[in-house]
Amino acid sequence: MKELLIELDVHAKISLYEQIYEYIRRMIMDGSLSCGERLPSARLLAVQLQVSRSTVDAAYAQLVSEGYLKAKRGSGYFVCDVGALFHFTAGHDREKGDNDFSKQRNAASRVTQNHSLNMIYNFLPGQIDDSGFAYNAWRKCAKEALLDLETSHRLLPAGHPQGEYELRVAIAAYLCQARGVHCEPQQIIIGAGNEYLLQMLAQILGGPRTVAMESPTYLQAYHTFCNIGYEVKAVPMDMEGMQTEKIPDEAMTLVYVMPSHQFPLGTVMPLRRRLQLLTWADAGSQRYIIEDDHDSEFRYKGRPIPALQGIAAQERVIYLGTFSNSIMPSIRISYMVLPQPLLAEYEKRCGFYASTVSRLQQITVCKFMEQGYFERHLNKMRGIYKAKHDLLLSLLKEKQWVHRIYGDHAGLHLAVELNCMYTEAEIIARARSYGLYVQGMSECYLAGSKKPDKRPILLLGFGSLTQEHLREGVKILEKCMIYK
Amino acid sequence: MKELLIELDVHAKISLYEQIYEYIRRMIMDGSLSCGERLPSARLLAVQLQVSRSTVDAAYAQLVSEGYLKAKRGSGYFVCDVGALFHFTAGHDREKGDNDFSKQRNAASRVTQNHSLNMIYNFLPGQIDDSGFAYNAWRKCAKEALLDLETSHRLLPAGHPQGEYELRVAIAAYLCQARGVHCEPQQIIIGAGNEYLLQMLAQILGGPRTVAMESPTYLQAYHTFCNIGYEVKAVPMDMEGMQTEKIPDEAMTLVYVMPSHQFPLGTVMPLRRRLQLLTWADAGSQRYIIEDDHDSEFRYKGRPIPALQGIAAQERVIYLGTFSNSIMPSIRISYMVLPQPLLAEYEKRCGFYASTVSRLQQITVCKFMEQGYFERHLNKMRGIYKAKHDLLLSLLKEKQWVHRIYGDHAGLHLAVELNCMYTEAEIIARARSYGLYVQGMSECYLAGSKKPDKRPILLLGFGSLTQEHLREGVKILEKCMIYK
Repeated sequence: MKELLIELDVHAKISLYEQIYEYIRRMIMDGSLSCGERLPSARLLAVQLQVSRSTVDAAYAQLVSEGYLKAKRGSGYFVCDVGALFHFTAGHDREKGDNDFSKQRNAASRVTQNHSLNMIYNFLPGQIDDSGFAYNAWRKCAKEALLDLETSHRLLPAGHPQGEYELRVAIAAYLCQARGVHCEPQQIIIGAGNEYLLQMLAQILGGPRTVAMESPTYLQAYHTFCNIGYEVKAVPMDMEGMQTEKIPDEAMTLVYVMPSHQFPLGTVMPLRRRLQLLTWADAGSQRYIIEDDHDSEFRYKGRPIPALQGIAAQERVIYLGTFSNSIMPSIRISYMVLPQPLLAEYEKRCGFYASTVSRLQQITVCKFMEQGYFERHLNKMRGIYKAKHDLLLSLLKEKQWVHRIYGDHAGLHLAVELNCMYTEAEIIARARSYGLYVQGMSECYLAGSKKPDKRPILLLGFGSLTQEHLREGVKILEKCMIYK
Repeated sequence: MKELLIELDVHAKISLYEQIYEYIRRMIMDGSLSCGERLPSARLLAVQLQVSRSTVDAAYAQLVSEGYLKAKRGSGYFVCDVGALFHFTAGHDREKGDNDFSKQRNAASRVTQNHSLNMIYNFLPGQIDDSGFAYNAWRKCAKEALLDLETSHRLLPAGHPQGEYELRVAIAAYLCQARGVHCEPQQIIIGAGNEYLLQMLAQILGGPRTVAMESPTYLQAYHTFCNIGYEVKAVPMDMEGMQTEKIPDEAMTLVYVMPSHQFPLGTVMPLRRRLQLLTWADAGSQRYIIEDDHDSEFRYKGRPIPALQGIAAQERVIYLGTFSNSIMPSIRISYMVLPQPLLAEYEKRCGFYASTVSRLQQITVCKFMEQGYFERHLNKMRGIYKAKHDLLLSLLKEKQWVHRIYGDHAGLHLAVELNCMYTEAEIIARARSYGLYVQGMSECYLAGSKKPDKRPILLLGFGSLTQEHLREGVKILEKCMIYK
């Protein structure tokens, strides 16, 4: 067993666990550690390096999950055969965010260029900025929540199946004020992520249904519908969002839309179109609209666009929101506002499910909202994201290879239609060979519906990138477009 | 608006929020607050009483959820018409535990006796003791987890879809040592509760299936299967658990069992029967056994019984475990060990789902396990529960009205078969009229399968009760059995 002489730099920009990870990865790649060799135990290495056990664990875990090491129970960690391995580094957590990670990883592993394949520039959509987060306020709220729950003997027992009442009150107030959503706390169900709530919703609605979706769309929702046995029909989009008159009539009772800021196109559905959609819903007693309002917190120009739910037909709209973008992806708290008529069905079919979110997390978020931190955090992040958005937009604006930009002035990514000699897949592969990861629009279309335009469209997420990385990233993209 | 002159006693046994709750409830019940009257805002009352806002919120929330108050957005809290209301008090959270709460509430509200209807003695199964919890250790682990995640930049981004690798390592080690389960961390999926994992499992297995269940059984699982479109067949039980030879053959590919400690009967399946079950599973390429090992941590006599998963056919058993009983119900962390052949299906169909448990909670539990607190906590709780179990058993042993006791020496409840002139429903109603809540065995049978014996069987949960309450509770039960 080789001793690992890792010199850690506590002042470095990258964390200790990444430093350990990177050191070992390099030793494996340059042959200093060879296949089958055994590594020191995490406990021992932690003592040697004077870091916490979990720091070493995290580094080892990442090396295992990327195929550099193999853990054998009871005997420790061993170096894998990396001869044919695709080298995928760092930003692992971040990349996963809300994306179809395994798909991306598969796509990435198909890239066999000779360049360094480390992800240096993460332009994947769904990434958030973690430098601006209100860590102190969060820590304070978490501490208070823990003490409160202890004092009131609410820490251990399961809470209300729909989620803590206090948090539902806070969410209802926020939705009313910020999104124009009208609801009582009794209509809110808090759950561990949108996909979980969609699965529950299917049980509330009962029986398999046919659902109309925008195409391109948010694929997580699409795959969830497929998994629970729903038939999904793609409805074409224009610059005003889903073309409501093209919703196929046959047996369609459900529409899933993102009217305030469509993913991935960034389209905003105008009022006329919204009313058409509500008219469609009113025409059948079992028709419902699922409004996914995933990132409407971040709008950089003009007034916020109120939710469809608030317009009129509150009995036809199921509103879905999440704290993934507005607080943090790791928190797994989403919420669903059920129309009154569905509440009895919820109670009957799903009322027995315990809440899927821990009470402690719920009360922490509740305090974060009640004490005004949430609003301040959103205001701050809006400023941070706006600066990044404006910079990226200005960097792209006069480029010959940029044909058109969609979805600007909101959200955490831009959709950029290209003028260039490569296909979308080629551009993505070329960019990856420079360490720049980006998603293509084609990936967001439902099976059976294809991107109509032949021009490549890239989704450029700017959430987690620094100004410097944004500048360098655009230079790399230019290189990918122009040179052979 | 009436001023509420609540005198709080900070030294009282019941928490501040319960005191406020109880004070207002009494005022409503005795007419001091009448229907339609408006209450002071939570903010104002918190200032008046010099307590935190969330304490008042919690009291109001409970009053709303129990139908004493109605919240009107923007205008505050108003007293409801309680003329015909069933009065259901305190222990609200606790009662919910893992039970079918709304059902119990409905059952409770059918009771129309003239006694006080407050729940004083909570004998419902699934209740835990919160006085023995390692609050200090938990607080320490939560604090460390928060700092660790911040330092390593892992607090905000979403983690691994299967759950944090460190926690999966800790769970695998625990399962191997304590339950004889053989698995790699790569086979573990961490999720927000057993019901969520069963829903995911259905998606991994693909297509609707027919599942065989013990009857009586854990109804949450039964209702979950029904909700996702599975056909459920009841298999009769004897003193050795599910009668494997009676598993109907037609198209049956799934069996859900609790071999180590069946709920609610407490049966332990002997090895011979276990091997029969594994033989059944081996006879079809698509056959799987779901082993729910929900509370095997608490066994008070003899050696722990190893899990079915560890015996031999690890490719046929899907193992389910939870921290609900062993740590706390509010935490919502369960785990599922998939056999190797199902891992590829998981990756394909469900790999895109983000983890449903927050990273912070996962790392807190991980530290709780790694630093030895979990083991110490289990040992301590086993002692606490054993003392309660032994006391309850001794109190029941010589009673004429006790015909037989099932499921002793393990778990958090006893199943008590009665010798008395009342039906099960009558006994339960009589007990409730004295403030004693208890569940009947009949409720645990699947639709279409009935309790064979005509003698009433009560499930007496002892987890959350003090010795004094256990003694008083048994006296009350005796009163219910004997006197008219």
